[in-house]
Amino acid sequence: MTASPTLLSQQVCFGGSLEFYQHSSNTCNSTMKFAVYQPPQARSEVVPVLYFLSGLTCSDENFMIKAGAQRYAADHGLMLVAPDTSPRNTGIPQEAEEWDLGSGASFYVNATQEPWAAHYQMYSYITEELPALMEEHFPVRADRQGIFGHSMGGHGALICALRNRDRFRSVSAFAPIAAPSQSPWGQKAFSHYLGTDAEAWKAYDASELVLTAGYNRPILIDQGTADPFLSKGQLQLDLFEAACTQAGQPLTLRRQGGYDHSYYFIATFMGDHIQHHAAVLCR
Amino acid sequence: MTASPTLLSQQVCFGGSLEFYQHSSNTCNSTMKFAVYQPPQARSEVVPVLYFLSGLTCSDENFMIKAGAQRYAADHGLMLVAPDTSPRNTGIPQEAEEWDLGSGASFYVNATQEPWAAHYQMYSYITEELPALMEEHFPVRADRQGIFGHSMGGHGALICALRNRDRFRSVSAFAPIAAPSQSPWGQKAFSHYLGTDAEAWKAYDASELVLTAGYNRPILIDQGTADPFLSKGQLQLDLFEAACTQAGQPLTLRRQGGYDHSYYFIATFMGDHIQHHAAVLCR
Repeated sequence: MTASPTLLSQQVCFGGSLEFYQHSSNTCNSTMKFAVYQPPQARSEVVPVLYFLSGLTCSDENFMIKAGAQRYAADHGLMLVAPDTSPRNTGIPQEAEEWDLGSGASFYVNATQEPWAAHYQMYSYITEELPALMEEHFPVRADRQGIFGHSMGGHGALICALRNRDRFRSVSAFAPIAAPSQSPWGQKAFSHYLGTDAEAWKAYDASELVLTAGYNRPILIDQGTADPFLSKGQLQLDLFEAACTQAGQPLTLRRQGGYDHSYYFIATFMGDHIQHHAAVLCR
Repeated sequence: MTASPTLLSQQVCFGGSLEFYQHSSNTCNSTMKFAVYQPPQARSEVVPVLYFLSGLTCSDENFMIKAGAQRYAADHGLMLVAPDTSPRNTGIPQEAEEWDLGSGASFYVNATQEPWAAHYQMYSYITEELPALMEEHFPVRADRQGIFGHSMGGHGALICALRNRDRFRSVSAFAPIAAPSQSPWGQKAFSHYLGTDAEAWKAYDASELVLTAGYNRPILIDQGTADPFLSKGQLQLDLFEAACTQAGQPLTLRRQGGYDHSYYFIATFMGDHIQHHAAVLCR
């Protein structure tokens, strides 16, 4: 049993209902926020659900404001859920000091190190507590769940799916941090959240996980060729591609000419990603 | 001849190019900013152009980030232009004191009163200087121009089209301030920009202009029934509707159940509005 989330605001959008919530998370031991888009179909039936994990510095709002996904979700009858990117206002002193650590930068792991471990349990939050809440309080089908995300959230989507193939039946990503152990962003976050022994990082690194996950269902990734974080070594798509090849994991990695890391890139290919998920979840 | 605008940023979006510019405006005697979305078709041909005027507090960015119009513009081969909602940093002391007057709140009029008159000449900027700049520096068809907008910008689009039917061959609006002389927002702005003699306001009031404009081409307006500014008397769609009936002006006014005043409302009906313009401009 999970407590009912508190509705903060509600707006009609593409015939459905866009809703912002907060709730008391047992997993993160803090208040958490998330956004839900209920398609028109959810008024009369249970519908598949698709989770979107956002990138560094984002909140539960960016995706719903900028990605243009509601139109496609309404077409397909998919519920969209966009959680916040971290706990906030936890009382951890260092929480808001750096934009790539703490608030807005959870990296979707279960922290084992102090001072983070008491609150930064986002992996369990995304894979267990939030789905349980959705199943209990919203008209969603537990057997039709997918996950996708952008950048840090693309990493989060990949690790959540690879480790939970029975829960997340479809997965895709926009410009994910695809080998965080080899990325300056990932190395910084993992060393603070998980400690300096890189062996502990493998459980949260998609390029490691894919080698043994046996996920097998097709993965779709779009990556802009003009993405400045690609050339800075933050994303490491080549490593993930090689790991998929080695593991026999089906991967469609599209290098999109001229696109950058922004929501203009995400919006452009959103329709393709929703279609990728709907093909599995809405059959 | 107009000076070339300065490109501030450029991003690929839906196969076209989203560009932010600034330039020195002779009309407003200040630096002005605007955003342009060039559809893929503009690389090889001159294309129709559609201006979007934003509402109170918005800048040249809101529309391109939130409205989801680029997808439809790319489909139809329409160039989109989103000017800023006022001059800024003019040195007028009161410019930034109130959110509904001065910066972000030009109401798209030519101010006659001090201290505004030296810079707040947005009506001439939108109907003359900016189109001239677009025709000179971008691959647009001068004979295929349309205009639309939201709230204060819906008012702006209506008055610009009604007074310039030869330039703006199509017009539509989302939740426009459709009778500003009867609206608290409009009365405040007009009294400061145009003086307290309401006779001078008629040239910028769509519900007055439509009586004699002879625009005749169909006008499309969407209005959410849950829009809080409708019930507060800011928008006055009923007055505009009655004036159109009196004048024999074709109007499709759609009252959309449950929708509010936000960009979620705008995004929902953006496809219909682009279609309305494309039917005229892209034949």
